[in-house]
Amino acid sequence: MNDFKSLSAQFIKQFEQEHFPAEPATLYDPNRYFLSLGGKRIRPVMVLLGNLLFDALHADAFKVANAVELFHNFTLIHDDIMDAAAIRRGLPTVHEKYGANTAILAGDVMLIRAYEYLNAIDKTVMRQIIGLFNKTAAEVCEGQQLDVDFEKMNEVSLDAYLHMIRLKTSVLLASALQMGAVLGGAGKGNQDHIYAFGQDLGIAFQIQDDYLDAFGDPAKVGKETGGDIRQNKKTFLAIKTRMTANADQAKRLDALATTNGPEKITETLAIMRACGVDEWAKDLKQQYYDRAMQHLEAIAVLSNRKGELRQLADFLLQRDY
Amino acid sequence: MNDFKSLSAQFIKQFEQEHFPAEPATLYDPNRYFLSLGGKRIRPVMVLLGNLLFDALHADAFKVANAVELFHNFTLIHDDIMDAAAIRRGLPTVHEKYGANTAILAGDVMLIRAYEYLNAIDKTVMRQIIGLFNKTAAEVCEGQQLDVDFEKMNEVSLDAYLHMIRLKTSVLLASALQMGAVLGGAGKGNQDHIYAFGQDLGIAFQIQDDYLDAFGDPAKVGKETGGDIRQNKKTFLAIKTRMTANADQAKRLDALATTNGPEKITETLAIMRACGVDEWAKDLKQQYYDRAMQHLEAIAVLSNRKGELRQLADFLLQRDY
Repeated sequence: MNDFKSLSAQFIKQFEQEHFPAEPATLYDPNRYFLSLGGKRIRPVMVLLGNLLFDALHADAFKVANAVELFHNFTLIHDDIMDAAAIRRGLPTVHEKYGANTAILAGDVMLIRAYEYLNAIDKTVMRQIIGLFNKTAAEVCEGQQLDVDFEKMNEVSLDAYLHMIRLKTSVLLASALQMGAVLGGAGKGNQDHIYAFGQDLGIAFQIQDDYLDAFGDPAKVGKETGGDIRQNKKTFLAIKTRMTANADQAKRLDALATTNGPEKITETLAIMRACGVDEWAKDLKQQYYDRAMQHLEAIAVLSNRKGELRQLADFLLQRDY
Repeated sequence: MNDFKSLSAQFIKQFEQEHFPAEPATLYDPNRYFLSLGGKRIRPVMVLLGNLLFDALHADAFKVANAVELFHNFTLIHDDIMDAAAIRRGLPTVHEKYGANTAILAGDVMLIRAYEYLNAIDKTVMRQIIGLFNKTAAEVCEGQQLDVDFEKMNEVSLDAYLHMIRLKTSVLLASALQMGAVLGGAGKGNQDHIYAFGQDLGIAFQIQDDYLDAFGDPAKVGKETGGDIRQNKKTFLAIKTRMTANADQAKRLDALATTNGPEKITETLAIMRACGVDEWAKDLKQQYYDRAMQHLEAIAVLSNRKGELRQLADFLLQRDY
């Protein structure tokens, strides 16, 4: 079966293999620990789905999927240091458990290991896939740097935020699908469409993420909401609210930003709603979702092969709010 | 001309090319800054020398040399964070000037850029060279982790220290030469010998480095000496002294380790000399140098092609002390 769920199970099972040498354990145990924290493994499954859209699984599909997942985990280990995040998936982050120096090195060798998987794939696709991987890897670092920069800025434009999100989050989803498409023998036009599908889907997903953090039902979202507001994060919603607020609302937002009581979240949400930002965000997400689906439809394969990617889009973008 | 000096000048000139995009400048300016600090560029020249030992320069030799030099700079940027080093080559380190978060990311993209150069080389050598690069890159991280580990340990054996130094320093020299040899079309046996030559040379160089930091003439060494003793670093010399010292000397070393006055260095040096550690280190360095030269002699090319590598060994291992 090639649906998302069974591919995910297949990937997770083979990903349990040992990726690192035993020694030095002080370097590689942290990596084993971090991978053992699990995760949805969405990106590697996108490699497999991108491949299967065009042809049966390439002999090297799991190697590429492993490289993509290891790359993603490398970014998480280093991002956690930068964000001073102590907890991931309910357990201590690598730098929290083993120290920042080891976390830097553990991330570095995680990235190098990804390249080892890529160096083992068939010569006919190797250069294109490594090229795509390199371009994407640099873009993800650029996006993370912009995120670091934005934290220190008073104002960030919507375009600048969109650009940052595209680099930090979307291009890896897009690239994972395209790597799969390359393995599946897709032509240039189809590769471009599947990349654009992944990119727009990623942005829609991020808009949803920002929306749910503000307006979501904690019971459905599965985590406490309001965290972005509490931390004064410059999300899609915060930026749009700033652009829309009248003078009184803007003044009140400034005041709320300096507080930390319960009124900070309730009042900020009220202003966001008064500015129509909740509806705007739903519309914007829908626009990106629609664009993503148009790119999916434009891919020149039989429509019934596209069911799994439609399923993936629905899996990422819930409708229940 | 293919001697070390003119190859070095050639490399430095072409390395002045722009390696990074303009934007985001907050990410790439730190990399441009760090590369502008210069350096001896020994490793990339070793790629060229390894190539020229066997054949004329391969069309991709400078790409591989660039990858090796960028990799080396990636390790320096990350190592400086770990060592909390504020100064390199007389100027602020990346994390000191731009913050640790940017330094982590700047290092990451520096490594990724190295892989871009490697992904542009000829298919017939690409897999072997990337394979060698990956293996070496992981080993260098392992060596750095062992160095981090050793800082926290009370006792480190000579073998453990040698293993750490081999990974942290020697394998990249060895691998740079072997990558060059691959480009030059060398067979397996010759590749093994040139790798071993680089590895033993690297260890001899490190022994010399430790020796000069303790016993060197500051005027000749070009920097203040005694730094390793001041910081209680577990060098070749410190480990050997511990192994050789009698009970009284050991007790005095323990006491000196907790002090920071001028007697710390003079008295520790006196005990080292009394234990014969200065002569031992010279002998040990000579042993590694001799082994390196035996490997060089064993390479099956005409002896007169080996002049530049003998020159390199002499350049790295001065005799004037």
